[in-house]
Amino acid sequence: MIEGQDSLTKAGRLKYGMIGGGKGAFIGDVHRRAIAMDGGAELVAGCLSQSFDVTRETGESWGLPKDRLYRTYRDLIVEEAARPNRPDFILVTVPNDAHYPAARLALERGFSVVCEKPLAASSVEAADLVRLTEEKGLLFGVAYAYRLYPIVFHLRDLIASGELGEIRFVAAEYPQDWLAGPLETTGQKQALWRTDPRRAGISNCVGDIGSHIENLVSFLTGLEMESLCARLDAFGPGRTLDDNASILVNFKGGARGLYWCSQIAVGNDNGLRVRIFGTKGSVDWAQEECNYARIGFTDKPAVRISRGRDKMSPRAQSLSRIPSGHPEGYFEAFADFYSIFLGALRKKKAGEPLTGDDLDFPNARDGLRGVRFIEKCVESSKAGASWIRW
Amino acid sequence: MIEGQDSLTKAGRLKYGMIGGGKGAFIGDVHRRAIAMDGGAELVAGCLSQSFDVTRETGESWGLPKDRLYRTYRDLIVEEAARPNRPDFILVTVPNDAHYPAARLALERGFSVVCEKPLAASSVEAADLVRLTEEKGLLFGVAYAYRLYPIVFHLRDLIASGELGEIRFVAAEYPQDWLAGPLETTGQKQALWRTDPRRAGISNCVGDIGSHIENLVSFLTGLEMESLCARLDAFGPGRTLDDNASILVNFKGGARGLYWCSQIAVGNDNGLRVRIFGTKGSVDWAQEECNYARIGFTDKPAVRISRGRDKMSPRAQSLSRIPSGHPEGYFEAFADFYSIFLGALRKKKAGEPLTGDDLDFPNARDGLRGVRFIEKCVESSKAGASWIRW
Amino acid sequence: MIEGQDSLTKAGRLKYGMIGGGKGAFIGDVHRRAIAMDGGAELVAGCLSQSFDVTRETGESWGLPKDRLYRTYRDLIVEEAARPNRPDFILVTVPNDAHYPAARLALERGFSVVCEKPLAASSVEAADLVRLTEEKGLLFGVAYAYRLYPIVFHLRDLIASGELGEIRFVAAEYPQDWLAGPLETTGQKQALWRTDPRRAGISNCVGDIGSHIENLVSFLTGLEMESLCARLDAFGPGRTLDDNASILVNFKGGARGLYWCSQIAVGNDNGLRVRIFGTKGSVDWAQEECNYARIGFTDKPAVRISRGRDKMSPRAQSLSRIPSGHPEGYFEAFADFYSIFLGALRKKKAGEPLTGDDLDFPNARDGLRGVRFIEKCVESSKAGASWIRW
Amino acid sequence: MIEGQDSLTKAGRLKYGMIGGGKGAFIGDVHRRAIAMDGGAELVAGCLSQSFDVTRETGESWGLPKDRLYRTYRDLIVEEAARPNRPDFILVTVPNDAHYPAARLALERGFSVVCEKPLAASSVEAADLVRLTEEKGLLFGVAYAYRLYPIVFHLRDLIASGELGEIRFVAAEYPQDWLAGPLETTGQKQALWRTDPRRAGISNCVGDIGSHIENLVSFLTGLEMESLCARLDAFGPGRTLDDNASILVNFKGGARGLYWCSQIAVGNDNGLRVRIFGTKGSVDWAQEECNYARIGFTDKPAVRISRGRDKMSPRAQSLSRIPSGHPEGYFEAFADFYSIFLGALRKKKAGEPLTGDDLDFPNARDGLRGVRFIEKCVESSKAGASWIRW
Repeated sequence: MIEGQDSLTKAGRLKYGMIGGGKGAFIGDVHRRAIAMDGGAELVAGCLSQSFDVTRETGESWGLPKDRLYRTYRDLIVEEAARPNRPDFILVTVPNDAHYPAARLALERGFSVVCEKPLAASSVEAADLVRLTEEKGLLFGVAYAYRLYPIVFHLRDLIASGELGEIRFVAAEYPQDWLAGPLETTGQKQALWRTDPRRAGISNCVGDIGSHIENLVSFLTGLEMESLCARLDAFGPGRTLDDNASILVNFKGGARGLYWCSQIAVGNDNGLRVRIFGTKGSVDWAQEECNYARIGFTDKPAVRISRGRDKMSPRAQSLSRIPSGHPEGYFEAFADFYSIFLGALRKKKAGEPLTGDDLDFPNARDGLRGVRFIEKCVESSKAGASWIRW
Repeated sequence: MIEGQDSLTKAGRLKYGMIGGGKGAFIGDVHRRAIAMDGGAELVAGCLSQSFDVTRETGESWGLPKDRLYRTYRDLIVEEAARPNRPDFILVTVPNDAHYPAARLALERGFSVVCEKPLAASSVEAADLVRLTEEKGLLFGVAYAYRLYPIVFHLRDLIASGELGEIRFVAAEYPQDWLAGPLETTGQKQALWRTDPRRAGISNCVGDIGSHIENLVSFLTGLEMESLCARLDAFGPGRTLDDNASILVNFKGGARGLYWCSQIAVGNDNGLRVRIFGTKGSVDWAQEECNYARIGFTDKPAVRISRGRDKMSPRAQSLSRIPSGHPEGYFEAFADFYSIFLGALRKKKAGEPLTGDDLDFPNARDGLRGVRFIEKCVESSKAGASWIRW
Repeated sequence: MIEGQDSLTKAGRLKYGMIGGGKGAFIGDVHRRAIAMDGGAELVAGCLSQSFDVTRETGESWGLPKDRLYRTYRDLIVEEAARPNRPDFILVTVPNDAHYPAARLALERGFSVVCEKPLAASSVEAADLVRLTEEKGLLFGVAYAYRLYPIVFHLRDLIASGELGEIRFVAAEYPQDWLAGPLETTGQKQALWRTDPRRAGISNCVGDIGSHIENLVSFLTGLEMESLCARLDAFGPGRTLDDNASILVNFKGGARGLYWCSQIAVGNDNGLRVRIFGTKGSVDWAQEECNYARIGFTDKPAVRISRGRDKMSPRAQSLSRIPSGHPEGYFEAFADFYSIFLGALRKKKAGEPLTGDDLDFPNARDGLRGVRFIEKCVESSKAGASWIRW
Repeated sequence: MIEGQDSLTKAGRLKYGMIGGGKGAFIGDVHRRAIAMDGGAELVAGCLSQSFDVTRETGESWGLPKDRLYRTYRDLIVEEAARPNRPDFILVTVPNDAHYPAARLALERGFSVVCEKPLAASSVEAADLVRLTEEKGLLFGVAYAYRLYPIVFHLRDLIASGELGEIRFVAAEYPQDWLAGPLETTGQKQALWRTDPRRAGISNCVGDIGSHIENLVSFLTGLEMESLCARLDAFGPGRTLDDNASILVNFKGGARGLYWCSQIAVGNDNGLRVRIFGTKGSVDWAQEECNYARIGFTDKPAVRISRGRDKMSPRAQSLSRIPSGHPEGYFEAFADFYSIFLGALRKKKAGEPLTGDDLDFPNARDGLRGVRFIEKCVESSKAGASWIRW
C-alpha cells in the first residue's frame, strides 16, 4: 500500500520569499503548509502584510530573521535580489489588485514566481507577465490548485487518449453560498475585499471561482473558446460586482459548454464539479469528493474510480501519496502543485532540460487565459448577455 | 405506518376511452397501469394504434368489446359521444403531431381529456384547446407526471410558505443519453419519431424533456418568464432537431434561471433535477431519488427529508401511499395524477364545487405554457441564441 | 425505451378471495393495488376484518357482492370452495397468528394460497403447510417481496454464474426506527400487535424484518445455514419481544454471515441492505435504492448497474417494466411477485408444465425456512446467545 | 473563511527521533509529513530501518547529521538520551513486534513517546508501558489517527451532551479488500508482515483495523465492555491469522455493539464507519467521507453536518483548518494528533499544567485497552466464538 511520491529531501530544498500571508490570511497559510508538508522549500523572507507590525509579529513567530522581514513588497524583492543566498522564487498571495506589480518586479529582478489567481487586473497586465516570464526564461506558477488533484490528471489523460470519443458538451458548475447574506457589511475581511471593485477588480464571482471552472475545463479537454455569452448577477443588496454567473460557451470545433458559478447558492460549500460528455463516454468529477470520479459509457455500466485503488495514468499515479480510502484533500492538491513546480525549478537550477511532465503546473499562460475569460464575461454581461467572440 | 390515500372504490369508478397506447407503446401502458392501480377508472373503448389490426388484437386481449374498438380517433370520439354509457374522459397518448386534432374533437364532443405533452404543435393550437376547455367547462389534464411526486408538492408548499426567502436563482437540468448514438438509424420506434420534425414538431429535446423542466419550475416557484436565451444543439449526425439545449431564463421580478436538457449526456438515465435558491434556503430534488429532497439553509445544517417519514405539507402527505423507505416511483406519480384528476372529475360529475387542491393537476394552461416555451426556445436559438421576450 | 413485461390481459385474469386487508390495513392494500396494476387477477370475495362491519363497509365500497363478504375466514373458504366460480387462490394478509389456520383450511379445500410472512407460528405448522401444498399439488406463495425487485434477480444470476468467485462472507442489515419510541403505548395498530407475543409470536424484529434478510440472502446465494448465534435485544421499555438483533451465521461449506436487524435504529427508514463478498467480486444492494446495485471487483473499478439501462440477466430483464431512471418501487416488487405467481397459476390451470422460471416466486418452503430461522434465533438468544446448529 | 488553527511557529518547535519509517515505509512517511505540515517538531535523529544502509541513505537524503543516524533503536535511545540537545520525544513506527522494547527503553531513558498501534504484543507489555509512562510522568501518544478528524470530536461532544439520549446500540464496520487475494505470496512487504504471526502477533485483521473500531467507539461513547463474542476468520489460503472478524459486544449498562472488520471485503478501500444509536438520535460517520457526518433524529429530518460550515463543538472547531468544502483528509488527521500531542508536550516542558483538552490525544491507556481487545477477540474465537468476559 505504498505510493510513489518522493519524500522530503533536504538536498534539493529550495528557498522562497513570501508577499502576503500574514496572520489571519487563509490562502497564504495553505501555501506555506503545503510546501512544508513535503519539505521542498524553505521560507526565508517575507513582507507578510500591509502592516509591518503584523509582518514582524508573524515573521518572528515563524523564526524568520528580522533583517529579512520587509515593509513593502518592493523592499523585499529588491533587497532579496541583491543577497548572495537569494530565494529561488517569490510567492505572491495578496488581494487581486496587488498581484501584477509584485509579480512584475519579481520577474524583472530574475525571480521565478508563484502567484494566486486571477493573475492580474487585466489581460494586458497578464500578457505582460507572460512575455516577461518567457523573455527571462523563468518559471511562473499560478495557483489553480483544483486541477492538481491526482484524479484530475487521470481524467485529462483519459480524455486525451480518446476513450470518451469526441467531446461534445461540458457542464461545469461551482456553487458556494458564503455571500448569500450581506457578509461584507459585517466587516468580514474576505467578503470586504472580494466585493470591492477597487481590490477585486472587474468581477467578484467569475474572478474568484468562475475562473477555476475555465482553468479546469481547459486543462481537462484542451478545448479553446470561440465565443461566449455571460449573464452576471449581483443579488446581494448594494453589490456592484457579480455574485452569480451563467455562461454559455462555444468552443472551436463545435463543442459546447455551460458554466455556472455562484456565491449565493444556499446550501453549497465549495461545489466545483465538471461533467464532460463525449461521443463514447463521460466523466463526472466533484471537488468535494476529490478522490473519486465517475466514468460513464454508452455501452457498459458506469464505473467509479478511486484514487490509489484503480488503475490511473502514470502521471496521475505519480501524484497520489497514500492508499485508496485514505482521503487526500485540499492541502495535498497544493502540495502537488509545489511538487511539480519545485521539481521543475530544481531541474532548471541544475541545468537539466524540462520535459512535458515537468511543466504541467498551471502557469502564466493559464493565468492570462483566466484573466481574459473574466474580461470577456464582464464584457458580454454588460452588453446584455450577448455573444462575444473570444 | 399506514398512509392516508383512499383506496380503490368501485362506487366512484369512472370510464375512459383511449387513443394510442397499443402493444409496444411505452407511455400509454404507464397511464393504463397507473389508473388500474387505484381502480379509479375503467377502460371502455380504444383506438390504440394507427393499425386497426393492432387495435383489435390489443383491445381484445384486454377484454374490450369489439364494437368499442375503432379504426380512427374520430370514429372513437364521435361514436362514443353518442353512447348512453359514454366515457368520462378521453386519454390521448399518441405522438405529438396527433395531440391537437384528437383532443380538440374530444372537447368539442363534450369529453374531458387527458393528453400527453407537449400539448400541441403550436401555441395557437394549444391556446385553442385552453379556450375550448374553459368554454365547455371541461377538465383537461396534461401528463407532466414528474411534478406529481408527493415530495414535489411539499417543496412547492415550502417555497410558497416563504421558508426559502425570496427566490433568486433556479438551476435545473435534465440529462439523458439514449440518443447519444444514432439510435434512429436502427429503426427504434421512439428514436424515429422523436427525431423526425414531421412527427415531433419543431423540437425534440426541449419538446420532450426541456418542457418538463419548465413545468416543474413553474409549479414549484410560481415564477413567470420575462425573457430567455436558448442555444439548441443537434449533435447527432444528420439530426435537424435538437438533442441538447442550454437556456438562460430571466424571470419577472429579478429571479434568474439556468436550464440544461440533453439526450446525449452519456452516462445519464433520466436525470431531471431542480435546485432552487432563495435568500434563506434552498431545495434540491432529483427525480431518480424521488422519495427524498435536500433542503439547505444559510444558518443551519442541510436536511434530507424522506417521504412518509418527515413532516410534509398536508397536500403532499395526502399523496403519499406507503411508509418511508418503501420506494414509490414513476407509476405512483402517474397514479397521483389520476388520483387528483379523477377526483376532480368525480366531484364535477356530482355537481360539487372544485376547490384549489382539487385542481392542482397539470392542465391545459400548463400545456399551453409548455408549448410556448418550446416555441420561444426554438425562436431564440434560430436567432443565434439571442434574447427573446416571453 | 420499451421494456418487455406483458401487460394486463383479460383473458388470463384469475380470481381471488382475500382474508384481511380491510380499511386501514397497510400490506393488504399493497397486495391489492399490485394485483390491479397488471390486471392479473380480480378480487371476488373477502373476509377483510375481524369486524364484519368493517368487512361489509370496505367490501361494498370496492364493489364486492354482499353474498361474498364473510364473517370468518372459515366461512369464506368453505363457502367459496363450494361455488362453481370459485376463486383461483386465497390471499392471507392477517396478523401472524392467523396465517396457519386460514392457509391450512384453504389448502384443504383445494385453494392455492398467497400468505404474508412469517408463514406460521412454528416450524411444525409451516412444515405442515409445505406437506399439504405438495400433497395437493397446489401453489403457495409467501410474500417476501423484497427479493422480487428485478435487480435482485440479476444479482442472483450473477452470483450463480460464478462471477464473484466463491462466496466467503455476507454482511446484511435491516435497520428501521419506527419502534425507537414506545409507539405501542399510543395505541398504534401495527406497533400493538407486533410487540404483543400473543399476536406476533415468539419474535417481533427477527420475525418481521430479520426474516427478510434470511430470505434474501438464501435466494441470492443459495447458501445453507449450518449454525447460528443470535443476540436478541428488547430495548423498548416493557417489551418482551425483540426490537433489535445481531446474528452470526456459519454456512455449510465455510462461508460466514453477519446479520443485523433493528426497529430502534434512529434515523433509518427501511434500510434493508445486503453485501456479498466472493473471492473475485462483491455485490452491494440496498432496498431503498432498489433500481441500482454496486458490483465490486478485485481487479477493476466498481460499477454501478442501473435497472433498465445495463445488461441484466434475461430473467431480471423480463421483470423490468420501464426504462432506466424511471424509478420502480415497492408496488412494482409486489406486482412482480404476482406476475410470476399468477403466471404459474395460469399455466397450471391450463395444464401446462411449470419450469424453473415459472416457479421462482418465494414459496412455502421459503416460508418454512423463514420460520425455522426465527425459532433458531430465539433459541440461541435464550441460551445466552450461544451457538445453535441449524 | 479563516479557520482557527494556530500556524507553525518556530518558537515552540520541538525535536524528535524516529525509529522506523525509512524509504518505502508507508506510515512513517505519513507521520513525518504531518508533523512538517504544521512545523511543530523537527526530526533530529533516526534509526530508520533494520538495514543501516537504508537508514544512512534515507537519513542523509533528509539532511540528518551522520552522527545521529543509528544502527539499532537501542543505540539511538541510549546515545540521544545522553546528548544535551536531546529530542523531546521518540516516534516508533516499526512492525508490531518491535513496539514494546523500543517504547519501553525510550520511557526508561526519560523520553515521551509516540507509537503506532497496536501498542504491544500483549496486554502485559502494554500495561507495563502505561505504568512506566505514569511513573515517569511522561507523555505517550498512540496513533489511532482516525479519531482525530475534527468532526469526530464534534460527535463525541454531541453524544456527551446527551443529544442522542441514552446510547443503545453501536454498529461499526471496517471493510478493506487488500488481502482478498494472496498478496503475501507476491512478496508485498505490508502483506508479508501482517500475515506473519511472528511479526504481527496474535491477530492480523483485528489487530490492524478492528482495533481502530474499538478505539473510535470507546472515544465517541465512553462505553466500557462487559463481554464479547468474536468469530475470527482466515479466508486467505494458508493464512493462520484472521483476515475477517465479526464481534458481538455487550457494554456495561446494557448497550450493545456489533463490529465487523475485514481485509477480504472485495470492493472496499478503507471503509471505517460507525453508527451509534441512542434513544433520541443517532450519528453515522464514515472515514472515507471524513468531512461530513449524518445525524438522525426520532422527531425531525436527518441532517448532514459539514466540517467548517455547521456549528461544531469548540473543541472540534479548534481542529478544523480550512473552510467547508475544502476537503481535509488523512494527513490532516495525523497533523491534528500532533497538534494536540505537541501542544501538551510544549506545555509540559514549560511547566504549565495540562488540562482536559490538552490530553485528549489517544494515549498509552488507549493502547492497552486496544491490546486487551485483540487478546479477548482471539481468546473468544479460539473457544468457538463463545462469550468472554472483559
